[in-house]
Amino acid sequence: MPIGYTKLPELLPVKGIQLGVAAAGIRYQGRKDLVVIAVAEGSECAAVFTRNAFCAAPVIVAREHLQSADPRYLLINSGNANAGTGRPGIDDARRTCEVLARQAGCDASAVLPFSTGVIGERLAVERFEAALPSLVQDLSEQNWSAAAHAIMTTDTVAKGVSVRLDIDGQQVTITGITKGSGMIRPDMATMLAYIATDARVEAAALQQCLQSAVNRSFNRITVDGDTSTNDACVLIATGGAGTGLIDASHTGYSAFSAAVAEVCERLAQLIVRDGEGATKFVTVSVGGGADSDECLQVAYTVAHSPLVKTALFASDPNWGRILAAVGRAGLDNLDIDAIEIYLGDVCIVRDGGVADGYQEASGQRVMDEEEILIDIRLGRGDACEHIWTSDLSHEYVRINAEYRS
Amino acid sequence: MPIGYTKLPELLPVKGIQLGVAAAGIRYQGRKDLVVIAVAEGSECAAVFTRNAFCAAPVIVAREHLQSADPRYLLINSGNANAGTGRPGIDDARRTCEVLARQAGCDASAVLPFSTGVIGERLAVERFEAALPSLVQDLSEQNWSAAAHAIMTTDTVAKGVSVRLDIDGQQVTITGITKGSGMIRPDMATMLAYIATDARVEAAALQQCLQSAVNRSFNRITVDGDTSTNDACVLIATGGAGTGLIDASHTGYSAFSAAVAEVCERLAQLIVRDGEGATKFVTVSVGGGADSDECLQVAYTVAHSPLVKTALFASDPNWGRILAAVGRAGLDNLDIDAIEIYLGDVCIVRDGGVADGYQEASGQRVMDEEEILIDIRLGRGDACEHIWTSDLSHEYVRINAEYRS
Repeated sequence: MPIGYTKLPELLPVKGIQLGVAAAGIRYQGRKDLVVIAVAEGSECAAVFTRNAFCAAPVIVAREHLQSADPRYLLINSGNANAGTGRPGIDDARRTCEVLARQAGCDASAVLPFSTGVIGERLAVERFEAALPSLVQDLSEQNWSAAAHAIMTTDTVAKGVSVRLDIDGQQVTITGITKGSGMIRPDMATMLAYIATDARVEAAALQQCLQSAVNRSFNRITVDGDTSTNDACVLIATGGAGTGLIDASHTGYSAFSAAVAEVCERLAQLIVRDGEGATKFVTVSVGGGADSDECLQVAYTVAHSPLVKTALFASDPNWGRILAAVGRAGLDNLDIDAIEIYLGDVCIVRDGGVADGYQEASGQRVMDEEEILIDIRLGRGDACEHIWTSDLSHEYVRINAEYRS
Repeated sequence: MPIGYTKLPELLPVKGIQLGVAAAGIRYQGRKDLVVIAVAEGSECAAVFTRNAFCAAPVIVAREHLQSADPRYLLINSGNANAGTGRPGIDDARRTCEVLARQAGCDASAVLPFSTGVIGERLAVERFEAALPSLVQDLSEQNWSAAAHAIMTTDTVAKGVSVRLDIDGQQVTITGITKGSGMIRPDMATMLAYIATDARVEAAALQQCLQSAVNRSFNRITVDGDTSTNDACVLIATGGAGTGLIDASHTGYSAFSAAVAEVCERLAQLIVRDGEGATKFVTVSVGGGADSDECLQVAYTVAHSPLVKTALFASDPNWGRILAAVGRAGLDNLDIDAIEIYLGDVCIVRDGGVADGYQEASGQRVMDEEEILIDIRLGRGDACEHIWTSDLSHEYVRINAEYRS
């Protein structure tokens, strides 16, 4: 059960976006596993992809297609990641685009392919082909929830969010769905996110908006420190709401940008809340840094420490493990006497050691919660950052050790 | 049970080194927990310490004392790390040196203090004081094995090794002991290692020799990626064997240096073999790199990946996880088609994906062993490095989650 999230809320349709789902039997039986997202002509599309050098075949093809045409269709399958499949895998990804393009009467480069699932197995392109008629027939503005379910792999719940705001006197909708329950599952790989809005947004502003939102959200979460070969996040702006063209100088740009960031943040947090074996949702906040980079360096060192993560699992206010992780984060000239570490609002470390008057019971009270804040104050500047992570449980080891057996 | 190591071998005495052990009741009942190592006058002493900014009180005091006097005594306790104890902890460490100095009739700065055990608790200096007479009375060249046992905390076996070589026609002995079963236990902290030789070695050459050996050994192991607040490694050269003075230009220097490196490597591997919950001893070798740094970057990314480590625990030849870890290690301009990855002698990745003709059964055969080689060839240079690590097991989570409960 995800932490602090029970079920998919109502997802609002976005004018200019239609979604279709089908059961293609790519790997799973008896469930939908194929999604097409049809994008109205004239829409703008921004995307960010995994930085893993071993990126999957669909990532390579989607990047290429984005260079040469405006996307009209996103084609997403779960059950097979088409990763680690070399050149034949790239040909397979191209062929899935071609079969959809033939059916839809567009150019193959107007189709962006995405895959998530097992690594190292060839994609059954003929199953895509067989499912396409029912997929296209299913297209509707109302299918966001169905799509959120169809892209799931090891997720325990479907994940999505909608927000609304006014721009130029028009109601603008932003709806997004995501999947992922670790930063990576090389077996059942990937974080995927699809976000659409009916605002009209200029191309460069849209990409900037997405990049900035991803940096504050999907790039600020970690379950196990791994990065998948298939990660992708797409933001589409259809213009269906009738706003003026939003560029960086538009009065509504900052509100729009903040709303996209909010959607991404909520989606990213859902991935951590549904993290593999997660029993805690943890915010690691690092303030008082000389710059943003060193705050993140400390935050990730703490968030990735197996000793900190097992202490979180055990609800153990083990301040020594947090202190040791901060100390080995590699910051130059760290003045340990200036550092303060809090669990929630309880000061646990000050003056180079355990805080005067700290009582284990106070730390225990914070650690017993499902949602925990580790708040580190470096005392050497004004920069601050925060990231979200989960704990390291028996269940994490079980899921990842027993997955293929 | 450690992997490939059953019990402490015979440890050879080193002329000029006497060891004493005592049961001071610092934390443990019914076992020895205090060690003194007496060093003959005229010996040289080299040392390296943790790079953790939150280093423990005894580390601060030992560094200071090394600046001002030649060490005559090493005083080591298990059961309490005297870490995270702020200024009072530093005073306690100084006082333990003073009480031994009074008893031994030397200056307090000739005593180096070392502690390992729980973090955040004050040291009971009066228990040191009470145990000192029996400790000093116990001094003997034959006590290496007793000392190896007395410095243990959560180690499941005592760890030590002796080697011999000839220099200047004299038989030279090198004996070392170590403790540690993770890179860190902030509760029961620390890697400690004490190595002594009866060769006569010039000070700068001895420090160089130790630093180089530590880089190839204790700095090449990782159980969980954490670095303790108390780590220390000391190398003493007494000159008791009657060799000439060995400096960097001496004909015997390279053989001596290689022997010290061998001792450190064997001790370091013992820590991994006895790693918390370890069921596999894993060598991660990275060759064909542009330089040593990028080889280590890839090796540590693979060795720290929880997904790789759980696959090792499951004896699962899950090449996708290794490939994904290599791909996210952050190397610029990585040509994935040039990379080859082997499990033992079985090629699992080539040409950007799973190797042609790879059979799961071949990978399984390698993964079923207790000692496993992951061999990564980057194909972009001549540098190579290797590190040693263990797997991530249910037992690791149990030990670290249940430790304080």
